[in-house]
Formats: sequence, structure tokens, C-alpha cells
Amino acid sequence: MAAGKELSGAVEWRETKLDGTSAKIVPESGLLERVCKSLQGRVSKISRFLEKAWSIGVSDPKKVIHCVKVGLALSLVSLFYYMRPLYEGVGGNAMWAVMTVVVVFEYTVGATLCKCINRATGTLLAGSLGIGVHWVATQSGERFEPIIIGLSVFLLASATTFSRFIPSIKARFDYGALIFILTFSLVSVSGFRVDHKLFDMAHQRLSTVLIGTSICLLISMFFCPVWAGIELHLLIHRNMEKLADSLDGCLAEFFKENNGNDNTVDEQSNKKMQGYKCTLNSKTAEESMANFARWEPSHGAFNFGHPWKQYLKIGAAMRGCACCIESLSSCIDPEVQVPGSVKNNFREVCIRVSSHSSKVLKELVVTMKTMTKSSTTDLTVGEMNFAVQELQNALKSLPIQLLFPTISANNATAETTTEQFAVPLIKILPLATAMSLLIEIAARIEGIVDQVDELADLAEFKPAADNKSKQGQSAIENIDDETMKILQKV
Amino acid sequence: MAAGKELSGAVEWRETKLDGTSAKIVPESGLLERVCKSLQGRVSKISRFLEKAWSIGVSDPKKVIHCVKVGLALSLVSLFYYMRPLYEGVGGNAMWAVMTVVVVFEYTVGATLCKCINRATGTLLAGSLGIGVHWVATQSGERFEPIIIGLSVFLLASATTFSRFIPSIKARFDYGALIFILTFSLVSVSGFRVDHKLFDMAHQRLSTVLIGTSICLLISMFFCPVWAGIELHLLIHRNMEKLADSLDGCLAEFFKENNGNDNTVDEQSNKKMQGYKCTLNSKTAEESMANFARWEPSHGAFNFGHPWKQYLKIGAAMRGCACCIESLSSCIDPEVQVPGSVKNNFREVCIRVSSHSSKVLKELVVTMKTMTKSSTTDLTVGEMNFAVQELQNALKSLPIQLLFPTISANNATAETTTEQFAVPLIKILPLATAMSLLIEIAARIEGIVDQVDELADLAEFKPAADNKSKQGQSAIENIDDETMKILQKV
Repeated sequence: MAAGKELSGAVEWRETKLDGTSAKIVPESGLLERVCKSLQGRVSKISRFLEKAWSIGVSDPKKVIHCVKVGLALSLVSLFYYMRPLYEGVGGNAMWAVMTVVVVFEYTVGATLCKCINRATGTLLAGSLGIGVHWVATQSGERFEPIIIGLSVFLLASATTFSRFIPSIKARFDYGALIFILTFSLVSVSGFRVDHKLFDMAHQRLSTVLIGTSICLLISMFFCPVWAGIELHLLIHRNMEKLADSLDGCLAEFFKENNGNDNTVDEQSNKKMQGYKCTLNSKTAEESMANFARWEPSHGAFNFGHPWKQYLKIGAAMRGCACCIESLSSCIDPEVQVPGSVKNNFREVCIRVSSHSSKVLKELVVTMKTMTKSSTTDLTVGEMNFAVQELQNALKSLPIQLLFPTISANNATAETTTEQFAVPLIKILPLATAMSLLIEIAARIEGIVDQVDELADLAEFKPAADNKSKQGQSAIENIDDETMKILQKV
Repeated sequence: MAAGKELSGAVEWRETKLDGTSAKIVPESGLLERVCKSLQGRVSKISRFLEKAWSIGVSDPKKVIHCVKVGLALSLVSLFYYMRPLYEGVGGNAMWAVMTVVVVFEYTVGATLCKCINRATGTLLAGSLGIGVHWVATQSGERFEPIIIGLSVFLLASATTFSRFIPSIKARFDYGALIFILTFSLVSVSGFRVDHKLFDMAHQRLSTVLIGTSICLLISMFFCPVWAGIELHLLIHRNMEKLADSLDGCLAEFFKENNGNDNTVDEQSNKKMQGYKCTLNSKTAEESMANFARWEPSHGAFNFGHPWKQYLKIGAAMRGCACCIESLSSCIDPEVQVPGSVKNNFREVCIRVSSHSSKVLKELVVTMKTMTKSSTTDLTVGEMNFAVQELQNALKSLPIQLLFPTISANNATAETTTEQFAVPLIKILPLATAMSLLIEIAARIEGIVDQVDELADLAEFKPAADNKSKQGQSAIENIDDETMKILQKV
């Protein structure tokens, strides 16, 4: 039986069963609709995914090239299967070469080199040790052979695994330790079965690994190479640029005059203001890049032995600065209104500190980009410090009278006499905090300057040529003009 | 010729050559000494390394147990070589099982599971696809066979490599994609040579991979398991505890009375103050642990599908707070002396805010540790907000008179009349900044409370039982007493 039932305006068909309960009948078209909807949902999900993948490819074509390189390396190593003389040359063990290429090929040259050297060294060491242990085991009789081999595998695997927890080993030889365990186990354990071919096996494994690694290295280094060092260099000075921009943005936002409806921050400047977050979150990326860069040979302006560790120090100094900017950005609270007259009194000097600070940062960016010692940095730092001094003087020359209730017994009269200029301390708290943080930021920027100077000394940056310094000067003037424009907009 | 020569008290032997130049003769004993010294240096380096390794083992015995587990798993999988029926059962392909164990066994259960599932799925998918491509290639004649295989390897390898750049795939299926490329290349390319055994090969590879992964999983899960989820849980609430400690430490240091020679911070309290840095630097660790924890089955108090992502949000909120503490710690500058009377006026109320804030954090730690909704958290947050309100009231009730030079024309007389209580703004700047940051920290701690509350809702924490809440209360009172002791020391 089926009955029409109206419930709060919606009509639905229910089937009353023999036991008296009734169940809703889902119309066929509803089911179809639902299937359609879920399909639509999936299609839109897939299209979003593809769009994302497309945008990754467009924004960083190097990644696409990397994929082509992997395909190329694999096709090249496949020749060992397609060509009979090559295949027989490695005794049918071409598999190891293919495996090496897949496992070892990484995005940057440094990472690939690190893995190649680790793999080759690990295989060589573990192979010889495995053959040695196997020889000792066979000498000690059939009964003790599996015991000796088993014990040595257990002990060496445990010890090597433990070494992977030690930070200095983890940073450089983690993969090598893994390959060591792998090869040692394979060589010593399989020696138990393939006794007569053990030496051949170890030798073939090593030679195929060498073939695989050399193919990877050749393609990785000579076909649109991506150097970890250059990536690190770019990351650091891009983050520095973002830091300068967010400092400017925060100050501009802080001193923006509220015109009622103009209270929202537009997306563009908000994104600019949030730039410091990149610095805060890039510690791990910096460390791994610096680690890989150490393995790379000379390339472009970077020699082997370039002081990559110094970049980590610069990064750390920048993170300290970014932390202060994060706190500064929290001062921008539209709820707490600093009295306009007080704000105006400090506006100019604060903006001068911030613009000089970001000018120093931008000059450091130029120093890093061109890898030349700028002759004007000292001057700019001096200007920044002078601006800080001015701010401090402004603060010093402005005595404030703290009207403690306990001290001025006649509170009422005190208030009436000073009413005109007296504000509660809380009203100027955001301003005071912002100024204090600005002074701290300037100090921390000096720390960054010191680290960059040390880098310039260690990496022997050339002093900027005269015309270059003029260019730098004009660039800085441009920056200054830009900053002034931003500030004029404020 | 050799001649003794005395130069500023040091005797050295020089050899005069035929061309008149002379060279210093290094005595044999000096060489020996140098060798000894370099040996000594190496020995001390090695002993330092061993000491470090020992301390890692002692501080975290779980790591040592992990190493034993790896050794055990390898010994177990070696049985496939030692026992003839087992060895013949996998057709002499025991190598793949050994390799799987070495590569897949990770420190936490979640990481091992993630790798196991990735490896098995990747192998299965790529194996079947490889066989399919191989069949198509063989059907199309001997001439096109290598071309079709080569092209498919190139295209699939490139596409899969690209997919590893997409964040959502990288986070969960990075290893699977690698294994997919590896297996597909091996199966399809080696099919060119070992045509008749291809199906056997793919089948054996899959079965040995399954044997290896099951050995890893069994040992990893049932022999002293290390769960990524529990590690993440511990990391978060330990960091929270450190945050509370460093907040207390910073405030205590800020309001410490300077007794001349007692200007240095002792190491213990300095270490405590720096605790917030752990929070700042643990983003990557948190992310990878949350990623692995998602794969783990129910264990202890954590179900499958526990809201691990929420831990990342708590971590992010904590980092915001840690940034403010970092800025707060920069206010502790012994060079800028805030006048004692001003400091004393705010000391009590500031310390109240900080102790209530750290009390809230410590209560959250208890909530996380016991996984029960504390009934007192709201109360404690209320107390913290009340303390903040008190601080704000203190700031509001303290009007300050800004003596603008332009406004008070007769500056000199103004100064003389208010001399007694007037201080330049710069003198109270660190105090004002510290207070402002304290208010901000309290606000951010409320953000952490919200995130922990959301976690409690999502993970369905039980409400604390009455006696438990009393225990919690007494624990908090203890904490309070401790804080008070610290503050009394100040």
C-alpha cells in the first residue's frame, strides 16, 4: 500500500509495511538526481585538483622540466634492457640501475649528488663488509654460518639505525646509512644461497649503481640544473624583500587615518603585510637546502665551499625580526583609538624609522642579489640609527606626568587642571608598543646587517663598482620614492 | 749546512741552501708531537661523538628499542634465506622482502603503516599497469614494442613525478608515487627481456613486498610500539607547559629588582625562559606527525579518525603566543631602567595577569594530559580576563599628562612644577610594551583555549569526574603556589 502524506508543506510517498511501520519511497528521479549531483561534485573536485596542478606548473616551470628530466633519465637507463650488448654487459642486473635512477633523482642537483654519493659509498662499504663477514662465516663451518651471519646483520643493522638518530649523521649520511643496512643484509644473507656468485653479485650491484648514479648526475647537472644553493640564495633575499614590505605595510596601516567606511584593508596590502609569515615558516626549507648546497660543485657565482651555513644565520636573524613584526601587526587594533593629536606627534618620526629600516633591508637585498659589497649600506644603517635616535629623542623630550592617585591626593582638581592634555595611559599603549617594537626591529635589522656583512666577508663579495653604487643609490632613491608614495597615500 | 739561530728567545735550526735562502728544519720529535696531537684531537672528537650518542640513547630509550626492532625484523626476514622451503616458496626472490623491511621500517607506527600501504598499493597498481602496457606492446609487433614501452615509461614517470609536487599528494602518497614509478619501469621494461616469466615476476614481487610489510607492521605495532599520535599529543602539551614556564620566567625576570651584582640570569631560569623557542620551531615536526597519525588504528585513548588536524591548529595558536613572548623577552633590557616607583605600581597587577595566564595554560595541559573536559577552565579563563581587566583599569585610571613642547609654551615652569613625578615617555616604554604584550598574550591564550575546546568537542573528551576536578583544582593550586614561590623569589 502506498499513501500520500503532507507534512509541513512537503509531499512524500510512504509505503506501509505489513508490521505497521511505514518507509519513505525514494522516487527514481531523486536517486538519479543524487547520482548526478555526486558525479558533479566529483567532477568539480577533479577539475579543482587539475586547476591547482596547472597553476603549480605555470608558476614554477622548473618543476615541469624536472619531471621531463626524470622521464628522460629513466628512458636512458632503459636502454640497458633494449640493447643486447648493454644488457649482457651488466649480467642481466640492469634492474639495479633502473632502481637507482628512480630512487636517487631529486629536484635539486645538491640533493641528487648527496643521494648519489651516499648510495655509492654505502654500497661499496657494505658490499665489502658483507663479503668479509660471509668469508668468516663460511670458514667457521656449516653449523655456525647462519648464526654468525644472523648476529652480524642484527648488530650492524641496529647500530647503523641508531646512528641515524644522531643529528650530524642524519643531516648528511641518513640515506647512506639506509643503503648500508640494505646492501649489507642483501650481500651477507643472500651469500648463504648464492655462494659461488657472491663476488659477482656485489661487483655487479656496485657497477649498476654507478651507472644509475652517473646517468642521474649527468642529466641533473647539465640539463636545466636546479641548484639547491641558488634556490637558498633566492629564498633568503625574497624573504628579506617580503620582510621589508610587511614592515612598511604594518606601519602604514597603523598610522592610517580612519575615515569611517574606509576601515577595511584591501586584499593586496593585506597580503603584503602578511609577508613576514614566509620568513617565520621557512626554517626547515632553509636547513635542508643549505645541507644539499654543501654537496654542490662550483656553479655560477657560488664556489664549492661557499659559506652556506651563514645563510642559516641570516635566516635566524630574519626570523627574530619577523617575530617582532608579527607582534607589531597585533598593535593594529581598530578598537583602541589612540588620540589623533598624540598619533600625529609621532607619525612622522615613526614612519621615518620604518622607511629607513626597510631601506636597509632593501639595500641588503641588492647586496645579496648582486653579490657585491654595497658602499652605501653603512650610510643607510647610519640613517636608520639616526632616525631611531630621533624617535628616542622625541620620546625623551616628551616628559609625561603620571598622576598616581595616591600621590595627588586631590585627584579631582588635578584632573580638571590637566584635563585638556591628559589621556589615560591605555590610550597611548598601542602607540608606545609600536614605537618600542620599531626600535627593537631596527636593532634586529642591524643584526641581519651584521650577518650579511659576515657572509660578504666569508664569500668574498666584490666591492660595488662606482657606477654600480650609483645605480644602487638611484635604486634606493626609487625605493624611497615608492615608500614616500605609500606614506603619502596613508 | 745547518746553523743555530736565536730569535727572540726561541732556538730553531735552519738549513741554508745553495741559493742563499734558508729553511727551518723541523725536528723529528716535533713531527711526532704533531702526530700525537692530531691523534689526541681525533680521539677526543670521537669520544665526544660517542658521549653524544650515549646521551641520545639515555634520554630517549625508545630510540634504542627501535634499533633493536629493526635488527629483529631483518633477522626474521632473513629466515627466508636460511630455510629452504621458505626460500623456494618465494622463488628465490627473498631479496625483495629484505629490501622492503629495510626501506619501510620507520620510527613510528604511523610512518611505517603509511609506507607499507603506499608500497603495497603502488606495487599492485604499477604491476598491473606494467603488465597491461607490456601486453599492448607485444601485440603491436617487435618494431613498435620498445617505442611503446619507452614512451609509456617516459610519460607515466613524468606525470607521476609531477604529482609529487602537489601538496595534498606529497603529504600522503609521496612514497607510493615513487614506488609506482619504480615498479612500473621495472615490470614494463624488464618484460622486454624476461617475457615468459613476467607474470611470475610481478606476482612474486607483490608477494615478497607483502611478506616484508607484514613483518614490519607486526613488529612495529606489537613490540613496544611508538605511535605518532601519542608523540604528537605529548609534543603539544609539553610545548604548552614550556610556554607557561617561559611566560612566568620572562615576567619574573622583567620585574626582578636589580641589586647591582645580581644582574646575571642563572642558567636554569634562562633555559626555562627560552622554552617558547621549542614551540616556534616545531611546525614541521607537528605536521609530519599529524600526517602519520592519520594512518594509525585505534590505540590507547585515540580512535582511528581522531581529529589530528586540530592539533595543528592548537600548534599554530601556540606559535602566535610564542611570538609575543619572544617580543616580551626583548623588553628585558637592563640598559633601560624603568623608574622603580612606576614599576612597583604595576608589578602586582602584571604578575597577576601573567600567573593567571600561565595557570590557564597549565590547566589546558591537564585537560590534554587527562583527555577530560575540565570544569574549571572557564573559571580560570574568567580569572585571567578579570586580571587583564584590572590591568586595563589600572592603565585607564592613570591619566598621563603629555607635555607637548608646542602646547605648554612655558616649558621650563611646567617642568619645574611637575618635576617630581614627570618622567620622559622613553623611561616607561619597556613597561608599557610589556603590559601591552601581556594583554595580547592573554588574548592569544584565549585563542588556544578555543582550539583546545574544539579538540575536546571533536574528540569527545569526557567531562572530568568530581573528584578528578577536585584533583585538578588542587593541582592548579599547587601550580599557583609554585608560581607564587617563584614570584616571591623575585
